[in-house]
Amino acid sequence: MSLILTQLQDQIGTITFNYAQRRNILSKALVDEIIQAIDALQKSKARVLILRAEKGAKVWSAGHDVRELPLPGRDPLAYHDPLLTILRTVQSLSMPVIAMIEGGVWGGACDLALSCDILIGARNCSFCMTPAKIGVPYNVTGILHFINIMGVNIAKEMFFTAQPLSSDQARKAGILNHLVEDEQLEEFTYDLAAKITHNSPLSIAVIKEQIRLLASAHPMSPHTFERVQGLRRMVYDSKDYAEGIKAFMEKRSPNFTGE
Amino acid sequence: MSLILTQLQDQIGTITFNYAQRRNILSKALVDEIIQAIDALQKSKARVLILRAEKGAKVWSAGHDVRELPLPGRDPLAYHDPLLTILRTVQSLSMPVIAMIEGGVWGGACDLALSCDILIGARNCSFCMTPAKIGVPYNVTGILHFINIMGVNIAKEMFFTAQPLSSDQARKAGILNHLVEDEQLEEFTYDLAAKITHNSPLSIAVIKEQIRLLASAHPMSPHTFERVQGLRRMVYDSKDYAEGIKAFMEKRSPNFTGE
Amino acid sequence: MSLILTQLQDQIGTITFNYAQRRNILSKALVDEIIQAIDALQKSKARVLILRAEKGAKVWSAGHDVRELPLPGRDPLAYHDPLLTILRTVQSLSMPVIAMIEGGVWGGACDLALSCDILIGARNCSFCMTPAKIGVPYNVTGILHFINIMGVNIAKEMFFTAQPLSSDQARKAGILNHLVEDEQLEEFTYDLAAKITHNSPLSIAVIKEQIRLLASAHPMSPHTFERVQGLRRMVYDSKDYAEGIKAFMEKRSPNFTGE
Amino acid sequence: MSLILTQLQDQIGTITFNYAQRRNILSKALVDEIIQAIDALQKSKARVLILRAEKGAKVWSAGHDVRELPLPGRDPLAYHDPLLTILRTVQSLSMPVIAMIEGGVWGGACDLALSCDILIGARNCSFCMTPAKIGVPYNVTGILHFINIMGVNIAKEMFFTAQPLSSDQARKAGILNHLVEDEQLEEFTYDLAAKITHNSPLSIAVIKEQIRLLASAHPMSPHTFERVQGLRRMVYDSKDYAEGIKAFMEKRSPNFTGE
Amino acid sequence: MSLILTQLQDQIGTITFNYAQRRNILSKALVDEIIQAIDALQKSKARVLILRAEKGAKVWSAGHDVRELPLPGRDPLAYHDPLLTILRTVQSLSMPVIAMIEGGVWGGACDLALSCDILIGARNCSFCMTPAKIGVPYNVTGILHFINIMGVNIAKEMFFTAQPLSSDQARKAGILNHLVEDEQLEEFTYDLAAKITHNSPLSIAVIKEQIRLLASAHPMSPHTFERVQGLRRMVYDSKDYAEGIKAFMEKRSPNFTGE
Amino acid sequence: MSLILTQLQDQIGTITFNYAQRRNILSKALVDEIIQAIDALQKSKARVLILRAEKGAKVWSAGHDVRELPLPGRDPLAYHDPLLTILRTVQSLSMPVIAMIEGGVWGGACDLALSCDILIGARNCSFCMTPAKIGVPYNVTGILHFINIMGVNIAKEMFFTAQPLSSDQARKAGILNHLVEDEQLEEFTYDLAAKITHNSPLSIAVIKEQIRLLASAHPMSPHTFERVQGLRRMVYDSKDYAEGIKAFMEKRSPNFTGE
Ligand code: NI
Ligand code: NI
Ligand code: NI
Repeated sequence: MSLILTQLQDQIGTITFNYAQRRNILSKALVDEIIQAIDALQKSKARVLILRAEKGAKVWSAGHDVRELPLPGRDPLAYHDPLLTILRTVQSLSMPVIAMIEGGVWGGACDLALSCDILIGARNCSFCMTPAKIGVPYNVTGILHFINIMGVNIAKEMFFTAQPLSSDQARKAGILNHLVEDEQLEEFTYDLAAKITHNSPLSIAVIKEQIRLLASAHPMSPHTFERVQGLRRMVYDSKDYAEGIKAFMEKRSPNFTGE
Repeated sequence: MSLILTQLQDQIGTITFNYAQRRNILSKALVDEIIQAIDALQKSKARVLILRAEKGAKVWSAGHDVRELPLPGRDPLAYHDPLLTILRTVQSLSMPVIAMIEGGVWGGACDLALSCDILIGARNCSFCMTPAKIGVPYNVTGILHFINIMGVNIAKEMFFTAQPLSSDQARKAGILNHLVEDEQLEEFTYDLAAKITHNSPLSIAVIKEQIRLLASAHPMSPHTFERVQGLRRMVYDSKDYAEGIKAFMEKRSPNFTGE
Repeated sequence: MSLILTQLQDQIGTITFNYAQRRNILSKALVDEIIQAIDALQKSKARVLILRAEKGAKVWSAGHDVRELPLPGRDPLAYHDPLLTILRTVQSLSMPVIAMIEGGVWGGACDLALSCDILIGARNCSFCMTPAKIGVPYNVTGILHFINIMGVNIAKEMFFTAQPLSSDQARKAGILNHLVEDEQLEEFTYDLAAKITHNSPLSIAVIKEQIRLLASAHPMSPHTFERVQGLRRMVYDSKDYAEGIKAFMEKRSPNFTGE
Repeated sequence: MSLILTQLQDQIGTITFNYAQRRNILSKALVDEIIQAIDALQKSKARVLILRAEKGAKVWSAGHDVRELPLPGRDPLAYHDPLLTILRTVQSLSMPVIAMIEGGVWGGACDLALSCDILIGARNCSFCMTPAKIGVPYNVTGILHFINIMGVNIAKEMFFTAQPLSSDQARKAGILNHLVEDEQLEEFTYDLAAKITHNSPLSIAVIKEQIRLLASAHPMSPHTFERVQGLRRMVYDSKDYAEGIKAFMEKRSPNFTGE
Repeated sequence: MSLILTQLQDQIGTITFNYAQRRNILSKALVDEIIQAIDALQKSKARVLILRAEKGAKVWSAGHDVRELPLPGRDPLAYHDPLLTILRTVQSLSMPVIAMIEGGVWGGACDLALSCDILIGARNCSFCMTPAKIGVPYNVTGILHFINIMGVNIAKEMFFTAQPLSSDQARKAGILNHLVEDEQLEEFTYDLAAKITHNSPLSIAVIKEQIRLLASAHPMSPHTFERVQGLRRMVYDSKDYAEGIKAFMEKRSPNFTGE
Repeated sequence: MSLILTQLQDQIGTITFNYAQRRNILSKALVDEIIQAIDALQKSKARVLILRAEKGAKVWSAGHDVRELPLPGRDPLAYHDPLLTILRTVQSLSMPVIAMIEGGVWGGACDLALSCDILIGARNCSFCMTPAKIGVPYNVTGILHFINIMGVNIAKEMFFTAQPLSSDQARKAGILNHLVEDEQLEEFTYDLAAKITHNSPLSIAVIKEQIRLLASAHPMSPHTFERVQGLRRMVYDSKDYAEGIKAFMEKRSPNFTGE
């Protein structure tokens, strides 16, 4: 049985996460299915894509599949990992992607939601950025997505406290384009999507690409970047990192010492 | 008869769009007059400029004069076109520019309003970004103005849906510095302008220039930029682009096919 | 007697400005004490730092010590000046810094507050950016801090009008992460700080550094930067600059002529 | 009959231009054949590619097919044109490409030769950069290839005088890696290629890509780039441009007026 | 009597330094005359400019007028100083500039020669970069001109040793496009200039501007640049700087202590 | 017994590699000693540093200690590795560093030599860049050092062929500032060093730092850099990489398959 459901109607594609038993975790299997589905929707000339969880979901997606993290001593957020692959796919897709959000959005799933072009949330949605809870050194492009949407001070609070932002806070921080009542979420989202289908897909595709390029146009010198990679490596080589993963697996609080 | 009215009092310059018959469209003629007026105000030592429509206007400005668009196969947003010229003039002007906004702001006029330094809107103002409705590939610096003011996700919604943002949405998205009641718009705006005239014009001019440079400091490699120009050219060479312009002229909805 | 008070409890360090007689002005002496205190807190393994004024303060900090400005003809915001040194110290500190704000924040103290990672304000707090009132050409990295937090149009209003932003405006502009009632300020701030202490300090340190690097990744060409320095020099060589400083010392309004 | 010859021996691929009747001009037809041949060589696991003219050629390649230039009023060096496509193909190819050069290299063919990784020339080779002779505004990435190989002052002389550089001058300017006697050209080139085939193809491919990225890492702001496009457009809209093309077709000297 | 001679023949402009009594030093007076002469040549439609000393000169130019250096504590290489103004004028001029060089080229005059597009030298020419001999902190764009022409290691040797490069070394380092016998210098230079006048001035102007932009496209972050300015300021505030200037005036060797 | 010899005379420091039994390999032990020696020379106010092998050496340095390479699956050129640490130390040192070179310079030792400010070579010196022979993915800043000195095409030949450049080729490629007869190497080098000691050390230090910053000012976007890291990781995870290291240890030719 499939981990997602795909639908296409009136040039609006919909991909529904259907993996509730593991809280729509972004495992390699799920990501592969999404990429295939996106491919098919493109060939069928969809003009907009809605990414959603099953109706009434308590968790939109729980993010990274921690079981798939590489061995200690390896970068947990490398270029070809499933999470980073799906982020780039969504950002580079020529049609707009709308995140229609019910329930919790955790860790890497925040990055997926922020990689969508327009975010529409129900009252019960929330966003929680967890790497500091596990001890993971997040990667540079991922952090840039957060800064570009919410500014540096809100991004820092999310990362440093690892506490959930409520839907209302997310609206005020500019993360959500729209916050709507739970029962109106579907109608509101599909109405907005329909408006997009009437506009020029070529014009939209180029503008989306230009925004993608501008938003990532914060170049650093090679030296700076290599220094950052050196710092990140120290983190994923640390005792705390091993402790963080272990505690997560054992469902207990980690005990961090800074070493 | 002139397309604008110019006034200077207490070192506050005012340029009022006076071209209601064509909804204050940014035609070459109008732009030329604005540039001359700005020139004169500078010589008269104005310290702040207010850009406004006539009192009670339903449309602040309808943006680009579509009749002046170049032939198909030519970039509709080239460096020396009237719209881009007035945007650079406003951004590079050493005195601050306040957009005092009543009524609708459409297309290229959004870019003009966002190029002003401070935006003050009345309840009836609204912002609508229309290139995807006509099939126009918007240009890179223009898109950057939007991102710098409102963040990527709100900018994408404006461009992709081509639907108007209400004054309240514009306030929440950070587009408007202030949203005031219609009858207080004038007084509020001139009070704020007066405060600026008491400060150091030299200090303000340098700070404005530094902000302009920082806000545009998102460099791309030549290769990337040439690729973007290639993409934009595909759009303005497309059938959809011709259809978009034609439909606009015939006041009907376009029928886009993505070709 | 010391100009600050330092405390460390439950891995939360607190530095309290204790220089009310000169409104917690950022004099060289105060800055030196803060830097020493930060050094000591780091050695004692503090995991988060709270920067605050004494309880019930009317002024969080009045910013630059104008008496310490260099002679006319010298850059008043040079790399090794006390203000710029404390800004870099706070930004480069590996632990997060929370600004807990009661009362007015003026001039360079705004830059200090914005250099903190998370800003929590009481109802009576306000922010006022004063260089244009005195005629000072603000520096590039300082201006960038403002843009990164509040966007270009709010930053321009603060700099050009030199008028205070109320706590409510600051919350809406995204400057404050949280606006809380005066009597809850302490509890709210220490609760948030406590959450940070339970997370991985290594992961947080690297993420903070990555955000610092990304936020400053708006490179300009050397030519552009030298031009900006030329413009700033014209300002601090001007008559208006001398008049601004003089008027400030004499507690009267300056009379600016633009020369 | 084919415009090129392709060969693969000992993991060394060779593409020989075979279009002497039009002096190996880089027409769309020729470029398409080269791209197909490269594709086939990659599939056959070639580890190095040699690009050459037929033995004893008087002209290595005469560059652009002027007959294929677009109508006046269109950019003659657009992203998807045949010349720019083959340049990117060669630069992005994961295996090294050696230009083995006999005879004259003209115009766009200089750019092709400089896009190869290693240049080996016979005594009779020469390089002539002709756009200023015809009135063509060369494009930014193309100019960057020249600067990266020979420095700014030699590049300027080539472009401004449009005079040929002899093989000896090319050696001294660092354009040629090696200048060898005519009769030794083949042996020398195939020996050098053979050495490459014994090294790690993965290591070489990544290093080549890194050099490609570093060599193009001279980012400009969007504003600057748009200004450059505006300047280039003025050139290809000019009378001189039409005159240059016309004179070339009529095999006479153009009469430029600067208009 | 004038400090320069100006001539225009066959669209070739010539400016001859005529200030042998002070070794063609780049004083404000000389620079002002050159700028006026360039202006006049542009209006007269010159297509190329030759910059030369009087025939048989022992010194092409001795560079900076040390008597015009600002007081200690001021940047000796500021944006609006005569030397930097003439450098930008030459670089931004739309027609090519050829430096025809007899005799010694010292200090800031090296920067002027390197700012020309094509350098042609006689046997007796030499280049000496003297700031480290006097203790001057050279500026960033100036240093970039050197790197772009001769690479980092030759530039470092010139700056660190402050010893002259002979004409032969200059040819090998790629500084000179051509090294010719003294008696052939004029004919060779005017022949090369004549070739330029037959090509498209529009095409040349745009290519020159693109090279200027690419060559300066080495952006740094604002923080880095402010740090560099801080370092340079320490130098021109130092005892050694005062000693260097004093020794130069007294025509003796300075005694540097590193303080 | 020590792996290096240190000397200080007339403000000229000399560090002589004294580890001939392992061909002056840049092991962690050797690097640590060099860093300590540099530290001591700085405290003793040395004004220039000469880096050399023992007199008459056949190998200046054999580069990386392959035995110290990390386990497969780890980046062999990470920020805190000994080689990269010594490169940064040399580049950031405020006094100039002269590489005085007799004998072969291999692999990472090429990078060390190129990181010196001035290179002076004897007839018997040669340069060989070996990573493609072993299958190592070289790092970005390292590759940039090569490009900055010798241009892209010579750098590519060195990396792709892994063949030695003779002293004469190195001189022509601009790698060596000076090529001198073996018996004159010492005198020539110490004479040049002596000239540096008479100039202003403050001026030299700032100019060196500016060149370092400019030479590395080729920023890339975070996305590009992460892609490069992904590519490099594929290489050091490959079978060929393991084979390359193994063959090197067994002193036989590797058999690369591209997998
Ligand atoms: Ni940005
Ligand atoms: Ni930005
Ligand atoms: Ni460069």
